[in-house]
Amino acid sequence: MPPIADIGIAVKNLKESNTLFEKLLGTAHYKIEAVLSEGVNTSFFQVGPNKIELLEASDDDGPIAKFIAKKGEGIHHIAFAVNDIEKEMNRLREEGFILLNETPKKGADNKLVAFVHPKTANGVLVELCQETPPQPSPEGRE
Amino acid sequence: MPPIADIGIAVKNLKESNTLFEKLLGTAHYKIEAVLSEGVNTSFFQVGPNKIELLEASDDDGPIAKFIAKKGEGIHHIAFAVNDIEKEMNRLREEGFILLNETPKKGADNKLVAFVHPKTANGVLVELCQETPPQPSPEGRE
Repeated sequence: MPPIADIGIAVKNLKESNTLFEKLLGTAHYKIEAVLSEGVNTSFFQVGPNKIELLEASDDDGPIAKFIAKKGEGIHHIAFAVNDIEKEMNRLREEGFILLNETPKKGADNKLVAFVHPKTANGVLVELCQETPPQPSPEGRE
Repeated sequence: MPPIADIGIAVKNLKESNTLFEKLLGTAHYKIEAVLSEGVNTSFFQVGPNKIELLEASDDDGPIAKFIAKKGEGIHHIAFAVNDIEKEMNRLREEGFILLNETPKKGADNKLVAFVHPKTANGVLVELCQETPPQPSPEGRE
């Protein structure tokens, strides 16, 4: 069974929330990354073997802006780290879950991601994420 | 910094959700526990080093019944495993967080628990939990 990679939390102001979560978690964020395709700015905190990912909307029509408009700030998703995302997507489809993505897409933190529709998962937005292989360096040998 | 112990998910029907999450996670729940003082029935799934805790209301006036009435099914809390809950409660108070409990109370899974007010934590209900020492057996020696 896949371990939990991160818990995503939708926030209105990334800078203010970075300060807040630094106080809460007792550790600073280690990375900030903009994901233009998703309309989000993200920051990451390492918490033991898991990550907390803060998500701020950078696009008023993006999923985080819509989430906050509807539900306010709060927990947005649970992401599970899978080794073979397409295989796991197929397994979940066969179990009756509806996926929000036909094929995996590029997410934050250099991962391929896909989402399970929360209506089929007790209101929980489940993300599958797969590490993508590191880019070979120009001088790399095969 | 404390690791994440569990993620709590509010559900309407524990039996149906146990089946659903068994399909989702690819593993069965390993425990069911009623917590009368909180008005909840819980079930636990092990997911790598973390747990997923499903929470069904057993009391129409309890916190899970109120949560579902207001927000519907979904992620309810993130619980952090702390070694000294009173020390962590004091640290968070000093950082400006508001706690929902003056003193720790007994929660599920043989733990002492306390909650941070979600209004002070970006809409996230944060639980602190501390393992309580195992009960000494009657024939135990000091």
